[in-house]
Amino acid sequence: MTKGQQIQQWTAQQGASLTYLSDPKTIEYLTGFSSDPVERVLAMIVFPDQDPFIFCPALEVEAVKDTGWRYPVVGYLDHENPWAIIADEVAKRHVTPTRVALEKSNFTVARLEDLQSQWPAAKFDLSITSFIEQMRLIKSPDEIEKLKVAGKWDDFAFKVGFEAVKAGRTEQSVVAEIEYQLMKNGIMHVSFDPLVQAGAHAAEPHGESNGTKFKENELVLFDLGTVWEGYISDASRTVALGQPTEKELDMYQVCLEAQLAAQAAVKPGITAEALDKVARDIITKAGYGEYFIHRLGHGMGMSEHEFPSIMEGNTMELQEGMCFSIEPGIYIPGVAGVRIEDSVYVTKNGCEPFTHTSKDLTYVGD
Amino acid sequence: MTKGQQIQQWTAQQGASLTYLSDPKTIEYLTGFSSDPVERVLAMIVFPDQDPFIFCPALEVEAVKDTGWRYPVVGYLDHENPWAIIADEVAKRHVTPTRVALEKSNFTVARLEDLQSQWPAAKFDLSITSFIEQMRLIKSPDEIEKLKVAGKWDDFAFKVGFEAVKAGRTEQSVVAEIEYQLMKNGIMHVSFDPLVQAGAHAAEPHGESNGTKFKENELVLFDLGTVWEGYISDASRTVALGQPTEKELDMYQVCLEAQLAAQAAVKPGITAEALDKVARDIITKAGYGEYFIHRLGHGMGMSEHEFPSIMEGNTMELQEGMCFSIEPGIYIPGVAGVRIEDSVYVTKNGCEPFTHTSKDLTYVGD
Repeated sequence: MTKGQQIQQWTAQQGASLTYLSDPKTIEYLTGFSSDPVERVLAMIVFPDQDPFIFCPALEVEAVKDTGWRYPVVGYLDHENPWAIIADEVAKRHVTPTRVALEKSNFTVARLEDLQSQWPAAKFDLSITSFIEQMRLIKSPDEIEKLKVAGKWDDFAFKVGFEAVKAGRTEQSVVAEIEYQLMKNGIMHVSFDPLVQAGAHAAEPHGESNGTKFKENELVLFDLGTVWEGYISDASRTVALGQPTEKELDMYQVCLEAQLAAQAAVKPGITAEALDKVARDIITKAGYGEYFIHRLGHGMGMSEHEFPSIMEGNTMELQEGMCFSIEPGIYIPGVAGVRIEDSVYVTKNGCEPFTHTSKDLTYVGD
Repeated sequence: MTKGQQIQQWTAQQGASLTYLSDPKTIEYLTGFSSDPVERVLAMIVFPDQDPFIFCPALEVEAVKDTGWRYPVVGYLDHENPWAIIADEVAKRHVTPTRVALEKSNFTVARLEDLQSQWPAAKFDLSITSFIEQMRLIKSPDEIEKLKVAGKWDDFAFKVGFEAVKAGRTEQSVVAEIEYQLMKNGIMHVSFDPLVQAGAHAAEPHGESNGTKFKENELVLFDLGTVWEGYISDASRTVALGQPTEKELDMYQVCLEAQLAAQAAVKPGITAEALDKVARDIITKAGYGEYFIHRLGHGMGMSEHEFPSIMEGNTMELQEGMCFSIEPGIYIPGVAGVRIEDSVYVTKNGCEPFTHTSKDLTYVGD
C-alpha cells in the first residue's frame, strides 16, 4: 500500500469526510514536492473514496506536476480567496464535509476558523498528526540511504571546518568556509546554520556563531548538518585548539564516555528514556549533571526535530529503522562547552551512525 | 508608550485575562530576543494589570536575560510539561483565565487544545494578530535605518553575483559566491536562499537555483535579500549575458516601465490595489498580462512577507513608514523570466528604495 493509500484508508476508518494535510513536509513526504509556501496556502485534500487533490499557489502548479503527481492540482492567485476555492473543489466532488481531519500540530487557529466559515456544519475533532508521525517514525531503506549521504557530507564539513580553525580567526569565518565548500560541491542546503563556538562561548548551547576569535588552548564546538534529497543530518564534534586544561579534558572524556555508552546501548526494545538515562547517569556520576541541560537526542528525517525524542518520560521502545541523534553535552558557563553527537539508525541488533569523523579528541590549528 | 505597554493596554481593553504571544518574530519585535524554538514552546504572557513573563526552553533563559528583558523568565526542561508550568505561573499571579487572547495566525490547533486542557473554563475567542500586524505595519525611523543597511548589502550581493556569471558556470556556483562574500563580510543570514536563474529556468518564478549552466545570449534573473539586525530585505534584478533576443528585450522594457511607474506612483493615500493596477495595466496593455502571475509586492520588516500586500482586492491606503516590495514579473514558459524589484519605504510625498543597483539592463559576462 502506498503512503497515499494509507492516508486514504485512515480517512475512511476514522469516518472523516476528508483529511486536510497542511504541513509542507508531510506533502513532500507523500509526493516529493518540496516547497515553502510562507503565508500562502498549500494543502493536500484526501477523501475516503475518491482521488485526492493538491491546492497550491498558481506559482507552484507546474512544480507539483513535475514531481509526477497523478491527480488534480488546483492553483490560486494572490487576490483570490483560497478557502472558497477549496470549498468549491470539494463541493464539485459531491462531498459535504461533516467531519474533517487536520494536522493539528501544524494548522493554525486562524486557518481553522477560515475552514469553519466554509463548512459551518462540520466537526474538526480529528487530528492525523500522530498517524503521520508514526508513518515517518520508521525509516525505509531508501530514506536511510539518503540520511547516510547527508552524514557523509557532515564528515566533509567537519574536515573543512577543523582545517579552518586558527587562533585569531573568527567563528563566522569558519562557518563561511564550511558553507562555501559545501555549496561548491553542490550541497546548497544545511539543516541549520552551522554552529562553530570557541571556548566559553560554547557554553551557550543554543547560541550562534559570531565574531568571537579563537584563542590558543581552548575547545571549539562544531554542530552542523546537511540536507540530501530532503533528508536532514545532524552531528557535533568538539575539538582542541592547542592544549586544553585538565578540567576541559575531563569534561571531554566524560561526555565521550556518555556518548559511546549510549550509542552502544541502542537496540530494538530499549526505551527512549532508558537510553537518555545511560548517558545522563555517567555525566551525573562524574559531577556534571547540572550542566547537561537538554535531552539526549531527537528524531530526524525530513525535519530537524521529529520523533522519537530521547528523553526522560518517553517510554517509547526503539525499533529497527528509527533515526535519532545521540548528543550529550556539558556546558559550564564561563568555562567551556562540550557536545559530541552522532545520529544513528536502529538496526536489528544495535545501531549504525551516519557520521564517521573520529570522536577521539582531535587537535586542530597546526 | 512602549510596544509592550501597548500590548498590555490592548489586553485590558479587550477584557482578556491574559494575552499569549507565541510568534518568535513578535517576541523579537517586542524584546530583541531572537530565537527559533522549532517544536519547543516559547511564549510571552502579558497581563492587563501586572508584569509580563517570558516562558522558554531552559537553554534559552540566559539569552533572554542578555537582551535586557526586565521581567521574569521561566525556563522548562525537555521532559517537563510546558503547559502545566505556564498554567502554574499564571496561577501564582492570582489569575484564573476566563478569556485568553492568542496570535491565532501563528498558534496551532494542537497547542490551543493543550491550553484548553489547562484552562477548561476559558474562552479563546480573541486574536491579537491584526493588532500586532498593525503595530508592525508602520516602521519607525530606526527600523527603516536597519532596512537601509540590509538594502546596501543587497547591492553588494548583486555586484558579486553579476561578476560571477559566465557562460558555462552553474547557477549554484554563483549562489555560493554571493553567500560566501556576504559571510566573509559578516552578513551571516540571507532573507531566503539567493535565487539565480538562467534563461528559460527563470520562467519558474518560485523555482530554485540548480546546476543549470549559463549560456551566451540569455537573460539571468537574480532575487535576493539579506538580514541586518533582524530586518529583512528583498530585491531582484534581471541582467543580460551576451545579447538577448528582441522578444526578451521587449519583456525587459515592459517590466521596467511597469516597475518604474509603480514606484513613481507610491505616495500616502494611494491604495495597495491601485498601485498593483499601475504596473499590471502596463504589462497587460503590452500583451503580457497572462504572464504576470503574482501580486505586485508584499510588505516586509522582520519577516519576509508581512503587510501591506500590494494586490488586487486590498483597499488599504498606503501611509508614511510602510515598507514593501514592488516586483512586477513576466514569465513566459520555455522562453525567459524577467523580474525587477526594489523594496521601498513610503515617505511624506512618495517613496525611497532600499536598493540602488541600476535598473537599466546590465550586460554581464565579460
